[in-house]
Amino acid sequence: MRVETITTVLDLVGVFINSLLGGSVARRRELDLFGYVVIGVVSGLGGGLIRDVLLGHGPPLALTNPLYIPIALAGAGVAFLLKFTEREWTRLFYVLDAVALSVWAVAGAQRTLAAGLAWLPAILLGTITAVGGGATRDLLVQRVPAVFGGNGLYASVAALVAALEVICSELGVPVAVGTPLAVVAGTVLRLVAYRRG
Amino acid sequence: MRVETITTVLDLVGVFINSLLGGSVARRRELDLFGYVVIGVVSGLGGGLIRDVLLGHGPPLALTNPLYIPIALAGAGVAFLLKFTEREWTRLFYVLDAVALSVWAVAGAQRTLAAGLAWLPAILLGTITAVGGGATRDLLVQRVPAVFGGNGLYASVAALVAALEVICSELGVPVAVGTPLAVVAGTVLRLVAYRRG
Amino acid sequence: MRVETITTVLDLVGVFINSLLGGSVARRRELDLFGYVVIGVVSGLGGGLIRDVLLGHGPPLALTNPLYIPIALAGAGVAFLLKFTEREWTRLFYVLDAVALSVWAVAGAQRTLAAGLAWLPAILLGTITAVGGGATRDLLVQRVPAVFGGNGLYASVAALVAALEVICSELGVPVAVGTPLAVVAGTVLRLVAYRRG
Repeated sequence: MRVETITTVLDLVGVFINSLLGGSVARRRELDLFGYVVIGVVSGLGGGLIRDVLLGHGPPLALTNPLYIPIALAGAGVAFLLKFTEREWTRLFYVLDAVALSVWAVAGAQRTLAAGLAWLPAILLGTITAVGGGATRDLLVQRVPAVFGGNGLYASVAALVAALEVICSELGVPVAVGTPLAVVAGTVLRLVAYRRG
Repeated sequence: MRVETITTVLDLVGVFINSLLGGSVARRRELDLFGYVVIGVVSGLGGGLIRDVLLGHGPPLALTNPLYIPIALAGAGVAFLLKFTEREWTRLFYVLDAVALSVWAVAGAQRTLAAGLAWLPAILLGTITAVGGGATRDLLVQRVPAVFGGNGLYASVAALVAALEVICSELGVPVAVGTPLAVVAGTVLRLVAYRRG
Repeated sequence: MRVETITTVLDLVGVFINSLLGGSVARRRELDLFGYVVIGVVSGLGGGLIRDVLLGHGPPLALTNPLYIPIALAGAGVAFLLKFTEREWTRLFYVLDAVALSVWAVAGAQRTLAAGLAWLPAILLGTITAVGGGATRDLLVQRVPAVFGGNGLYASVAALVAALEVICSELGVPVAVGTPLAVVAGTVLRLVAYRRG
């Protein structure tokens, strides 16, 4: 139960950050509050919904756990209310994006292993969880998804984080140690990748 | 069983209208009969397929109920055969589109509640049912989905209709009263939104 | 069990060919190895994942059978390593594409019938299996999917092959006869369609 709680908390952190970050897309398009909500829900819940549908273990967490939809709505609402200057937003965006990518890659891998699947599907679904919501949002607003726009590093960092999580799990590293390790490593890796262009 | 029958009938009405309306997209692209069929099936079955996959209760209705695929094919066939002038088509399009949006929002919300999920997922899946097929079709033919093309009202009307249905259900309003109420309210709201631009 | 084995082998042949063919898209975009992997996995596993999710019978084969992901990765790796001239690639592309389309249409129809669904869903899911992975890949790299780009024949060949497979199955034709028949017929049909433009 401990692992499940950690997975769910990570998942929800990713939901909040990603629906918040979806706001930057909504802002660039000058959408109204409802536009923020649609983009926030897609960005925040898309990756986990795709993962849970692929896992095929009944209704997705985002529909059965009563926290997911409200937290995605909250992220969209905060994004709508806060008026960052472009510069602040960009810097904040990079850090939050790196954290969200990592927590979702870890949560996706954990949940796949918990469903009894092997390590390779765990890496695949960890990656899909991490990039799926953003890619769906980008598709819907007709942007080339970051994953394919010459920014292959995005998905590769997610795959590496998921792999790290799987290795920790196979080696029997306690979740309370392996999880923060994978999240921190992923965040640093992602930020270094940003810096280097 | 009464509720399920009503839900299924509404769902099928939405299937027919949406595969018929998909024809206007196929016509603009000057597709052949097979193009009408592909676009009709995506438009007519897409929303319900996405909803049922997300509900995670076994194979989607569109695959197990023997009426769904034939009705979607019939809608595509009628669209291919009828030669509306552009003007008539546009006016008819608006009314049918408003009806289809509403019946699907109601059917999606009813089916989600019937699956034992809470009111917030019911509103979400009602909205997804209503806009999912059209958005998938728009994606496949590379149009910006109406939901995101500055036409936020489309999805917001669907969400309102689904919410109205959920409220009726919570208040114990009989389905035979609440359902037509929600459908009529949604149709009117959608047509007013068209008029106002 | 015999049928299931044949279905799985066909499915895996389709996975390998399609992730290999995905390489031509990755090459045109001058992607790195990781780009080949992402596009190869989407092209090779997308169609089957969509089919299995729609069938609603638990986790997709691509996640539970340990061969699917490695074979998709192998196809992507081979595509990355081999340096075909454009001309050779194009000719090879056409033949392999025709074979892959046919084996997937057959495998999709067989698997749908095996899940107890009727002949019309079997044709629909056979078609979706055959065109789903390529369409998803095209969407992600922002190309108009071949299915909709004036190339309706692509999906119609898949539908015909799936229909042929369903007819063989209904008539009680042994799988060892019906399957190669449908695959050969589909490949020839597809190549003839290419020739005629």
